Amino acid sequence: MSKSGDKNILLVGLGSMGFGIGKSLLRNGFNVYGEDKNLSQKEKFIGEGGENHTVIYKNINAVIIVVLNEMQTKDILFGDNGIAKNLKKKTLVMVCTTVSPQFAEEMSISCSNYDLLYIDAPISGGSIKSAEGNLTYMISGSSEAIKKARPILDVTSETVFEFGDKIGSGSAMKSINQMLAGIHIAAMAEAITFGISQGIDAKRFLEVISKCAGTSWMLENRAPNIINSDYSPKSSINIWPKDLGIVLNIAEKSGFSAPLTKIALEQFLKASNKGLGNEDDSAVAKVYAQGAGIKLP
Amino acid sequence: MSKSGDKNILLVGLGSMGFGIGKSLLRNGFNVYGEDKNLSQKEKFIGEGGENHTVIYKNINAVIIVVLNEMQTKDILFGDNGIAKNLKKKTLVMVCTTVSPQFAEEMSISCSNYDLLYIDAPISGGSIKSAEGNLTYMISGSSEAIKKARPILDVTSETVFEFGDKIGSGSAMKSINQMLAGIHIAAMAEAITFGISQGIDAKRFLEVISKCAGTSWMLENRAPNIINSDYSPKSSINIWPKDLGIVLNIAEKSGFSAPLTKIALEQFLKASNKGLGNEDDSAVAKVYAQGAGIKLP
Repeated sequence: MSKSGDKNILLVGLGSMGFGIGKSLLRNGFNVYGEDKNLSQKEKFIGEGGENHTVIYKNINAVIIVVLNEMQTKDILFGDNGIAKNLKKKTLVMVCTTVSPQFAEEMSISCSNYDLLYIDAPISGGSIKSAEGNLTYMISGSSEAIKKARPILDVTSETVFEFGDKIGSGSAMKSINQMLAGIHIAAMAEAITFGISQGIDAKRFLEVISKCAGTSWMLENRAPNIINSDYSPKSSINIWPKDLGIVLNIAEKSGFSAPLTKIALEQFLKASNKGLGNEDDSAVAKVYAQGAGIKLP
Repeated sequence: MSKSGDKNILLVGLGSMGFGIGKSLLRNGFNVYGEDKNLSQKEKFIGEGGENHTVIYKNINAVIIVVLNEMQTKDILFGDNGIAKNLKKKTLVMVCTTVSPQFAEEMSISCSNYDLLYIDAPISGGSIKSAEGNLTYMISGSSEAIKKARPILDVTSETVFEFGDKIGSGSAMKSINQMLAGIHIAAMAEAITFGISQGIDAKRFLEVISKCAGTSWMLENRAPNIINSDYSPKSSINIWPKDLGIVLNIAEKSGFSAPLTKIALEQFLKASNKGLGNEDDSAVAKVYAQGAGIKLP
């Protein structure tokens, strides 16, 4: 594919999800400038074929933001060194960060003040699917913005769910997914350690449960980390106080009681308070194991 | 297949799981006497080809028990009209009811007093897999008992996990599965109602989440009941206070804290207290919906 001007992308956030998006874009002929506050990630991305010279904002066609939270997202766009003011009109701003629907709406309004095209584009699927270009997107935005995002969505996704032009609807859907995902990780941790307490080893647990009605996507994805005692962060503990916090914040505003979500959040906070914040989120099992005096693999 | 004497089976409990086991046995040439306290289920089973004359216990080769709880199981075997005393020596007693490991051990000892062969054989998979002969078993028992159970297991299961000869190990594994299954049903209810509160309809919820990391076996199996407003019991609310009670009872004895399980149990108890005990367990969504003033489909 030709590397024409409309293929110039600035990708901010080269964590496990962002890095995969970047690789999928590179494979498909896009010019991608990768940015991350962690400079070694940026260098690694250049090694994969990312652009290694300074960004010229007027040549950028789309900005993709895949960072930890709302604060980082806002800072990138509108902070002291915010880029919104440097972007040319009609540049696409595609925010994949998990944020609240209200925040998405606020960012969209601020972007429209610069005549930028905002798309609310949270993702799901994990780092492997991200690297393969097989993410699931839950998007909302104007038809003009979605049209401009289409070539990016095409090469990075397996499925794109569209939730119309009301910015924030994609993020509302994402928060529901995160609610379930967070509960399921904590439930897996509760069950695998309960199993160990009953003499069922972790490997056998996965082998059996994955064939039974008790299985979940998260269980099959995260239990292997515990079995292999590999807590290098594919998705870190620190993500969950934030994401489940967003869920509970939305729920509270709607008078909705979410008791399982609250308990899952407590378990991740306990893990974080134990200094496990930067470990893989499967490390929430350590909270259960320590509480019951159980030895993990 | 010939209907020889060693194919005579007494099946007690013709609920959604037991009925399916019975049908799979009938398809494969077994003579099956079906019993249920609900006489219409018994008649329905005779309509499927079940034996319609009185059981002659000395001709029975195996008894399969698939009832609601420990009390019913014990009553069938050792109550005032208990059958253990009528069975010939070396008859197989296969208990598929969800019970605690301790109860399984107790029953096994009582059965051995009559020289009966006990097998701890809890199941997973739901009513559809049961009817197809594709259940998952988690079994423990002596090699003699397992050998005798093999022809039954062969025609009713997709997968048989063996946990050795320590009676109760199969039930320990089952309790871990139920822990997850119960949490996942309640989590699905929490999330689908939260979605409705955010303007995401139930059908769209299932369509999207089943493609995302938030999915679970239970979510995909139970959410359709809510979408179709079909609360006829495939698996009833009443099962959960019992099964999660078993889990928490085992956990407590081991000094294991299971906070998500406790909350899930509370939600099923609330449903039961609302008079929903005999509805499908997906009706736990009504607890959330009433609490938040949300209308289910």
